[in-house]
Amino acid sequence: MTINIGIDLGGTKIAAAAVDVATGEIAGRLVVPTEAHEGPEAVVRRIARVVTQMRRGEAAALGVGIPGVIDLATGQTQFLPNLPGDWNGLQVAGQLAEQTGLRTWLLNDARSFILAEATWGAGRGARSVVGMTLGTGIGGGIAIDGRLYLGFDGAAGEVGHQTIDPDGPPCGCGNRGCLEALASGPALAALGVKAVMQGMTTQISALAEQDLNRITPDTIRRAAEAGDAVARQILDRVGAYLGIGVGNLINILSPERVIIGGGVAQLGDWIFAPLRAEVRARCHSTLRDQVKIVPAALGGDAGAIGAAMWAYQRMKDEG
Amino acid sequence: MTINIGIDLGGTKIAAAAVDVATGEIAGRLVVPTEAHEGPEAVVRRIARVVTQMRRGEAAALGVGIPGVIDLATGQTQFLPNLPGDWNGLQVAGQLAEQTGLRTWLLNDARSFILAEATWGAGRGARSVVGMTLGTGIGGGIAIDGRLYLGFDGAAGEVGHQTIDPDGPPCGCGNRGCLEALASGPALAALGVKAVMQGMTTQISALAEQDLNRITPDTIRRAAEAGDAVARQILDRVGAYLGIGVGNLINILSPERVIIGGGVAQLGDWIFAPLRAEVRARCHSTLRDQVKIVPAALGGDAGAIGAAMWAYQRMKDEG
Repeated sequence: MTINIGIDLGGTKIAAAAVDVATGEIAGRLVVPTEAHEGPEAVVRRIARVVTQMRRGEAAALGVGIPGVIDLATGQTQFLPNLPGDWNGLQVAGQLAEQTGLRTWLLNDARSFILAEATWGAGRGARSVVGMTLGTGIGGGIAIDGRLYLGFDGAAGEVGHQTIDPDGPPCGCGNRGCLEALASGPALAALGVKAVMQGMTTQISALAEQDLNRITPDTIRRAAEAGDAVARQILDRVGAYLGIGVGNLINILSPERVIIGGGVAQLGDWIFAPLRAEVRARCHSTLRDQVKIVPAALGGDAGAIGAAMWAYQRMKDEG
Repeated sequence: MTINIGIDLGGTKIAAAAVDVATGEIAGRLVVPTEAHEGPEAVVRRIARVVTQMRRGEAAALGVGIPGVIDLATGQTQFLPNLPGDWNGLQVAGQLAEQTGLRTWLLNDARSFILAEATWGAGRGARSVVGMTLGTGIGGGIAIDGRLYLGFDGAAGEVGHQTIDPDGPPCGCGNRGCLEALASGPALAALGVKAVMQGMTTQISALAEQDLNRITPDTIRRAAEAGDAVARQILDRVGAYLGIGVGNLINILSPERVIIGGGVAQLGDWIFAPLRAEVRARCHSTLRDQVKIVPAALGGDAGAIGAAMWAYQRMKDEG
């Protein structure tokens, strides 16, 4: 039995799991606050402490899912939009290896998620899987025959940064009209905020206690469940945008399965129904009924499991 | 030396090549008219006759690039939008094998093109290549480590059917706002027709001898070369649409190289310059300067070479 430690580094918490890489099963978990405000070096030390507490001797390697852009070859972080401090050029893999005594590899967190889901989760048994994580941003990844397809610089899978409206709203990446700018969690919440600001007849405001700061994707879902027409239109619109993005992935990649995870996917059919309807309307007839569009299955553990698996694959490949 | 016969079936001509699959070199060529109006069975017999004339005994297998949708597993054609007659369910591979005595495999023609270009053409040496063919339609394909990535039903690579304008013009596939509907050869020519019909000040009409039927992508290029502002705007617009599509492919797939072929690519920098400018404006900074966007290198032979290579790969895989 090979046990690897997988870390899912988030803006608010560090989730660690000891993973049996032959089965994807979790032998132990530990979650601590990230305390990102203390800066990158402190966060790296905190990850190392968590790993040391968890490993009890048996772990073979360490994989760390990073919420941002990394250099796969050097193990350095480059750009982490949701964590404070300057992470660019930080030798995170090297520092963690030194502090834990474990060989360490980094991977983008959405790629960690899809590697786990493709192998042990909603993609199990499918030869080609595309994943999309709907949260503060929209990430993703591509897995073919049980391996991540990473492209020539490790960045393949940025499915949230496809332009689907050339003149659409600005995106954090510098482009306009990216799927992420139209259908991320904040984009969804912002449609609720705008509806309230425009004085539309909606329960969203009451559910958020008249405080625009409290409007979240879940506020909009609750309004929709209470029959609110404005909230339902917002969810239909965001679901349709996601359907355009998923439809593009189906036409370009023809995957056997598309897996949708992340916080916004928790809204369930409020998002999945308009998403699937849009795919049916836009994809070639030979494909649109065959590709399965499914919710993620591993819940909050996917990131850590995938990071542990990544370390296992890298260890095998590098010998 | 293994020689395979590769066929590139087009709406007006059948191009055949005897290809050394170890080098991609062509040992012989034959081109005959398709005479598509005679119907599918006659076209298949014509292909078989060409193969018989060419092979002189030494050919090991036959690959046929088909301009449309095929069933890779059964060797049947399904939907050939640009050839008359009912091709759906026709056992083309089986009939050709019977008539030529050669084991025969079909492949979509854009996938044939990209397989050849990735191996022996503009993609040589790159590990991941995405190709796009700009003609009557916009086709494409994905090659990873020298093999086509075909997805679960063989349809991966339909890069022309990504929605880049949700409310855009109708596309032949049934969707709206596909790249193909905005930037194919006919879409480009139609912008020229529209400009003339609107009475804009342009040389396009004179170059087409006042006949709307004669306005082609090349008419618009010639006008642009003569300094025509309307023609230049049209080419910029179509190039920008193509740049959006290519940018999406770069963000999703992070290929080492993107290869652009087909008739519209012959317009050269009139298309490539605005295309590359749009990619620079829309793609992540870490990638946009690294991915090479290059014109196809094998000219009109790519389709036949790729089809021959496909037959070689399938023969090896199936034993």
